[in-house]
Amino acid sequence: MAYKVEKLKINYKTLEEFKRFKEYGLQELSMFEDLEANIIENDSASPFYGIYFGSLLVARMSLYRVEAKFDRYFDPPQDYLELWKLEVLPDYQGKGYGHALVDFAKSYGLPIKTNPRVKSQEFWAKVGFTSVHYDMERDLGENPIIWYPSGAAEQ
Amino acid sequence: MAYKVEKLKINYKTLEEFKRFKEYGLQELSMFEDLEANIIENDSASPFYGIYFGSLLVARMSLYRVEAKFDRYFDPPQDYLELWKLEVLPDYQGKGYGHALVDFAKSYGLPIKTNPRVKSQEFWAKVGFTSVHYDMERDLGENPIIWYPSGAAEQ
Repeated sequence: MAYKVEKLKINYKTLEEFKRFKEYGLQELSMFEDLEANIIENDSASPFYGIYFGSLLVARMSLYRVEAKFDRYFDPPQDYLELWKLEVLPDYQGKGYGHALVDFAKSYGLPIKTNPRVKSQEFWAKVGFTSVHYDMERDLGENPIIWYPSGAAEQ
Repeated sequence: MAYKVEKLKINYKTLEEFKRFKEYGLQELSMFEDLEANIIENDSASPFYGIYFGSLLVARMSLYRVEAKFDRYFDPPQDYLELWKLEVLPDYQGKGYGHALVDFAKSYGLPIKTNPRVKSQEFWAKVGFTSVHYDMERDLGENPIIWYPSGAAEQ
């Protein structure tokens, strides 16, 4: 089954929907405050992408393109996507929503880095991500994993 | 009650003890592999500090001094401590172990930054940490909080 991945806009409805997700944190609170204070407009662009089941947001992730000059993960250094807060609501897990979001991220043809929760290793292995060689000064408390299209390799 | 905070050495015993902690991840696996392959010696230094109750490691954290030139959190930019994997075993929580570890980190007199789990906000507020202003390009999926001695301020 093909799911439609949508770029999410920041408005009160979306921010309310975000509260259903476990990884609701400073990023969402800051969006809410900016909206309240009219620092950002209603329906501004966001780094979030999601999938709706009917009118319910059931899966989401955040994506950001990191410029090559900041790259410390790939060889040669290049633009890559940082992916975070990939999450599917409990009742909708195991139905391919997470997979569809990752496929969407891969469709940019850029390497991807993410720092998954410890319990999600199996999922990430299935979608082709592998562990980097841990570097304390760079990775600190992270457990970075990466995926790369042909042509890119780990630093 | 005063607890003794010890700098932990990397050996098979310590690495076995680390398995009791939830945030066991790539960092620990990499230490284990390096030890197995003789890339690091038994009893090498580690970024971990811990507190023992008898012979049992009941609390731990990791600390790393980030140089001023990499500082994106404090104003003026300065050396600071990154703190991660602060964790107390379930049966030992609420007895001041976490607080003792944070006090130890503060004793260096440097600003501290950490990226706590979403559920631990109350603890961090109690020990004087405050949220930064979220900056997506810098913070991505993190929820950074900081503590600073007098003289340092947020960027």
